[in-house]
Amino acid sequence: MPMLLVFIGKTKEGFINDGIGKYLRLLKRQTKIEIREIKGSSRSGPDAVREEGASILERVAPSDYLISLHERGNNPDSVELAGKLAPVMDQGRNIVFAVGGPFGLSGDVLARADYKLSLSRLTFTHEMARLILLEQIYRAFTIIQGRTYHY
Amino acid sequence: MPMLLVFIGKTKEGFINDGIGKYLRLLKRQTKIEIREIKGSSRSGPDAVREEGASILERVAPSDYLISLHERGNNPDSVELAGKLAPVMDQGRNIVFAVGGPFGLSGDVLARADYKLSLSRLTFTHEMARLILLEQIYRAFTIIQGRTYHY
Repeated sequence: MPMLLVFIGKTKEGFINDGIGKYLRLLKRQTKIEIREIKGSSRSGPDAVREEGASILERVAPSDYLISLHERGNNPDSVELAGKLAPVMDQGRNIVFAVGGPFGLSGDVLARADYKLSLSRLTFTHEMARLILLEQIYRAFTIIQGRTYHY
Repeated sequence: MPMLLVFIGKTKEGFINDGIGKYLRLLKRQTKIEIREIKGSSRSGPDAVREEGASILERVAPSDYLISLHERGNNPDSVELAGKLAPVMDQGRNIVFAVGGPFGLSGDVLARADYKLSLSRLTFTHEMARLILLEQIYRAFTIIQGRTYHY
């Protein structure tokens, strides 16, 4: 799968599901892309995060380019983010985006990451982060292709 | 009105309207808050932005604290943003948030602003910016009140 988004737990909020669905449909015209929602751990705290991290890393092949969302990650602008993705896609490498649950991603997932991405200094709900990420991936495709996108 | 959000043009995207509605309902339990969608100018380019800016400033009283969204504004984290709002509310001043249309806000609206706010280095659609702003205002209230908010 050229582009895989791994989320912890189902998206519950209706409007967020609708928005994710919209951008996923738009993106599917551009590339093969899939969202995999992994069941959240039944444990709590650090144990949950570790267990969820192991489930995420099972989906990541050694050759995959892993982008892990992290509040202290890089803060690119949209053009810089597109500039990160373009050469990886040109190499034919698959890209995996990992978005944690309410307690974030494990140290293992962050250590494996080729790029740690922060969407903003503002804190978003982890469901809003999914929606914003989808919109930014779509925006990256329009930037790479030089198309005008309603802004 | 203690809190007024002035947007240029109606929000067209269904999922964004749903999300804005959700946060507006939550916020109305906390404060008097209203969204005013001003009709976008029929002109184009700089003329439109100037005309829209004049319409926005008609809604801003001299004593109001005006927060104008701007891509090169301050990039606070959510706690810093709450820290900006709290003292203004304590003073009993009304807060107006201005969000531009596709072409942004006029220089007049930016010059009048008490605070220029950027939601992220990433570029969002102006409708997504509305949704994210609502969520952050709600988050600010929960931070100010010290309540736990599902993150």
